[in-house]
Amino acid sequence: MSGRILVVDDVKANVRLLEARLGAEYFEVRSAVSGAQALEILADWPCDIVLLDVMMPGLDGFEVCRRIKTDPRLAHIPVVLITALDRSEDRIRGLRAGADEFLSKPVNDVALVARVRNLIGLKRLTDELRLRAQTGSQFGLSSDFDPAGEAPASLLVVDDRPGSAERLAAALSRDYDVAVEPSAAQALLSASNGAYDTILINLRLAGYDALRLVSQLRSLDRTRLVPIVLIADADDTARVTRALDLGVNDHLVRPVDKTELAIRVRTQVSRKRAIDRLAADVEQTLAMAVTDPLSGLRNRRYLETHLASELQQAADAGLPLALMLVDIDHFKRINDLHGHDAGDGVIRDVARRLRSHTRSLDLACRFGGEEFVMLMPETDLERAAGIAERLRKVIEAEPFRLPSADEMLVTVSIGVAAYQGRGDSGTAMLKRADQALYRAKAEGRNRIALDAGASQAGERAAIPSSPGNASGIAARRR
Amino acid sequence: MSGRILVVDDVKANVRLLEARLGAEYFEVRSAVSGAQALEILADWPCDIVLLDVMMPGLDGFEVCRRIKTDPRLAHIPVVLITALDRSEDRIRGLRAGADEFLSKPVNDVALVARVRNLIGLKRLTDELRLRAQTGSQFGLSSDFDPAGEAPASLLVVDDRPGSAERLAAALSRDYDVAVEPSAAQALLSASNGAYDTILINLRLAGYDALRLVSQLRSLDRTRLVPIVLIADADDTARVTRALDLGVNDHLVRPVDKTELAIRVRTQVSRKRAIDRLAADVEQTLAMAVTDPLSGLRNRRYLETHLASELQQAADAGLPLALMLVDIDHFKRINDLHGHDAGDGVIRDVARRLRSHTRSLDLACRFGGEEFVMLMPETDLERAAGIAERLRKVIEAEPFRLPSADEMLVTVSIGVAAYQGRGDSGTAMLKRADQALYRAKAEGRNRIALDAGASQAGERAAIPSSPGNASGIAARRR
Repeated sequence: MSGRILVVDDVKANVRLLEARLGAEYFEVRSAVSGAQALEILADWPCDIVLLDVMMPGLDGFEVCRRIKTDPRLAHIPVVLITALDRSEDRIRGLRAGADEFLSKPVNDVALVARVRNLIGLKRLTDELRLRAQTGSQFGLSSDFDPAGEAPASLLVVDDRPGSAERLAAALSRDYDVAVEPSAAQALLSASNGAYDTILINLRLAGYDALRLVSQLRSLDRTRLVPIVLIADADDTARVTRALDLGVNDHLVRPVDKTELAIRVRTQVSRKRAIDRLAADVEQTLAMAVTDPLSGLRNRRYLETHLASELQQAADAGLPLALMLVDIDHFKRINDLHGHDAGDGVIRDVARRLRSHTRSLDLACRFGGEEFVMLMPETDLERAAGIAERLRKVIEAEPFRLPSADEMLVTVSIGVAAYQGRGDSGTAMLKRADQALYRAKAEGRNRIALDAGASQAGERAAIPSSPGNASGIAARRR
Repeated sequence: MSGRILVVDDVKANVRLLEARLGAEYFEVRSAVSGAQALEILADWPCDIVLLDVMMPGLDGFEVCRRIKTDPRLAHIPVVLITALDRSEDRIRGLRAGADEFLSKPVNDVALVARVRNLIGLKRLTDELRLRAQTGSQFGLSSDFDPAGEAPASLLVVDDRPGSAERLAAALSRDYDVAVEPSAAQALLSASNGAYDTILINLRLAGYDALRLVSQLRSLDRTRLVPIVLIADADDTARVTRALDLGVNDHLVRPVDKTELAIRVRTQVSRKRAIDRLAADVEQTLAMAVTDPLSGLRNRRYLETHLASELQQAADAGLPLALMLVDIDHFKRINDLHGHDAGDGVIRDVARRLRSHTRSLDLACRFGGEEFVMLMPETDLERAAGIAERLRKVIEAEPFRLPSADEMLVTVSIGVAAYQGRGDSGTAMLKRADQALYRAKAEGRNRIALDAGASQAGERAAIPSSPGNASGIAARRR
C-alpha cells in the first residue's frame, strides 16, 4: 500500500519520528509544524491521510480537524488525531470535530501502520467514485438527491449475546431503525438484501468468527461500501488489527461509552450517505445521457445505439421488427398560438400517452422536436399498424390541457415501417417510416401510413388491424 | 484485505491446503476440481482472483486461463497459474494464455499471500471504474474510442545502469516508443506529464530507492493506474514482496528472457489501454449528458444548470449578463420542402456559425428544436444587441448547402434580454428573450428584438450597436 500522508506537529522531533516510521513503509510524507501550515499544504497537495497532533499553539488539532471536515474539498480525507492521553472526553471532542481515528503517544508502530493502511484502503474504495462524480459536476451536473428527504438511517446489529445486543439496540434505537441479527449467516443475507447504512458487529460472536463475517461483507458488491463498526474488548488488539486489514471502518472498546457510540455511528452513517450520493450522481448522469429531459423518454442517441442491436437480434432470431414515427400535427401552430410552455406540455402529454401504449419490449423515444419513435420488436407491419392506429385514436380522443387551463384537441400523423430482413438498416427503416409519415401528412394529417416499400417487396400486406377505421389510414402509393 | 478466490485443482488435497491457508487470512474461498467446473462457477460467482493448477485432466490450466482471458465478462479477473516446475517455457505458455502471475509447487505461504493481496489490490483500483462503465453500457452507451487508431504504446525505462537500460530499450524498441530515464526524480516528473502505457523500473537503481519511486508513482493521480514492471534479481525476494504490497503490476528476474519480457509488457500495455477505454467511456458518457448530439452544442439541461450560477456571479460581481434566443425562420418549411436531413443540416450549420461567434466566456447551446440560446457574461443589452445583429447578418449572408447540393437562404430571428439585477431569474430572462423573439417574428422575421422590459426598468437603452442597420431590429412595443 502506498499513499500520501501529512504529519502535523509543532514538535519537530515528533514530526521526524513519524516521518522516519512512515517513510520506511514507503509512504510519501510531508509535514507541517502548525495547523495553519497544514491547511495551506492541504489546499494543493492531494493527500490520503492527515496525522494531526492535538496540542499545538495557534490552531489546535481539534480546530484543524473541524476545518478539514467542514471543507467540501477536504472532508473525504481521513484524519487521525494523536493525543497525549487516551481520555474519553478528548476522544469525544475529536469525534465531534470529525476525527476518524485516535492514536495516543507514544505511538505504537504496529497500530500506526495498521490504521494508516486501513484508512488509506477505505479511501481508495471511493476515490474513483469521487473522481467520476467530480467530473460530472465539472460538466454542471448534479443530482436532485435530497438527504433531508430521506428515511431515518437503518442499522444492523450482529450479536448473538442477548444482553450485549439489547444494550446496543437500546442505545441506538432512538435515532435509528435498528435490526438485531444473532446469526452471522442470516446477517450476511439480510445485509446484502436490505439497505443498511451501518453494520455493528460484536467481535466476540459466540457462534461464528466475526472477522470472517467482516471479510464476507467486504467481498460482496452490495455491501463492500457499507460501514462496519466492531465492538471489541480491550484485550482484542491483535484481532482488531486484523479487522482493520479486512476493512472495518471503526471500532469501540467495551465498556461502550454511549456518547462515543452515538457519534461514531453518526459519522459512519453520514459517510455512507455521502457515498450513496456520489453513486447516485454518477448513475443519474449516465441516465441523463440517454433521456430526453422534456418528455422523460429515451432520446434519439439511445434509439440509434439500440436500433442496430435490435435489427441484429431480429435477423438472428428470424423475428419481425417494426417502428413507427409519430409527429404532432400543426405543432408549430400550437407554439405560435399558445406559447412554448403549451407546446412543451403537449409534447409531455403525447409522451405520456405513447408510454402508456408501450409494451415492456417496446422502446419509446423522443426523436427530436415534435417527433417520436416507437420501436416494436417481434411485431410485424400489420400489428404495428394496429398499435399505431390505436395510438392515433387515443391522442385524438382526449383533449390536451394547456397551461391556461384551456383544452385543445391535438392529433398526430404516424408513419410505420417494418424490418425487411438482412440488408435492411435502421437508417433505412427510419427513412421509410419518414416517407410514410410524409404521405400521412400530405393526405390530410391525423392518420397513419404504412411503408410502401414493404408491400413492394411483397413481404407483408399493409392492412390495418382495425379495418372499420381505415379512414385514418393513408392509402399507399400505387 | 478481503476478497473472493477460486481455487482450481483436480487433486483434492491441494485444494484443501490452499483453502486452509487462504481461509486463515479470511479470504472467501470456493473451489473447483476441474476446468469445466471452474468456468461454471465463474459464470455467476463474481470472484477477485483465480488460482489455477496447470496440470489437470480435461481442460488444463492453460486452456481454462485462455478461456477466462478471452471472455469479456471475465477477462479482468487475475489468474495465477500454479505450476509443478518453474520452467521458462511453461511461463511463456501461461503468459500467452493471459496468466497474471505464477507460483510453483510447493506453494510458499508468504509468496502466495503477497501475490493474492497484490492482484486483488490492483483489481480493486479499477473495479469502481468498471462498474460505472458497465452501467453506461446498460444504458446503451459506448464510446467511439478506437484502439486500432492509436499511436504505438510508449514505455518509460527507469534505469541508471547504462548497460542494463540499453539492453531493455533494445529489446522493446521494435514494438514500442521507449524512453530511458536514469534519474528517478526526472522519471517521476516525466511519468506524471507524459502518458506512458507502462513503466519499467530497475529494482537495483544505484542512485535512488526503486521502491520509493514505485510508491511515489502509485500516489500520484496521473500515474496511479499506470502499470509498473520491476526488473529484479533472483535474490531480491524480500524487496519484490514489498514491491507487490506497494502495487507493482509485474516483475521479471534477471537474466531477462526476451520473449517473456515482450509478453509481460504487452499484457500490461493492453491492460492499461483497457483501463483508458473504460475511463474514456465514462468520461464521454458524462459529456454526452450535457451535449446536444445533432449540433454538438451544450444542451438545454446544461444551460439551465449554468444559468443560475452565471446570474449569481453577475450579481456578486455587479457585472452585466445578457442572453439571446435565436430561432430559425420558417424552419418547418425547410423540413417539409427538403426533408428532415436538410433541416438537420441547417441546424448543424446555424450551430457552427453560432459557435464561430462565441467568445470564450460565452455559452452557446441548442435550446430545443430550431431554437438556440447564447449566454453572454459581462455583456450588457447594447453590446448583446450588436452581437445578435452580427450573427443575424452572418446567417443571412451565406446560403446553406442542402444534402441535394442545392443552396438555400436561411434567416433567423433573435430575442435579446439582459439581466436586471437581484430579483431577476434565469427563467424570467428566458421568458423576456422569448417575448422579444415573438415580436421579431411578428414584425416580419429576420430581425432582432430587444427585451422591452429592460428600458421600461430604465436600466439600459436598447439601441443597436450598428444603427446603420436598424432595419433589422424590431421596434420595441410602446
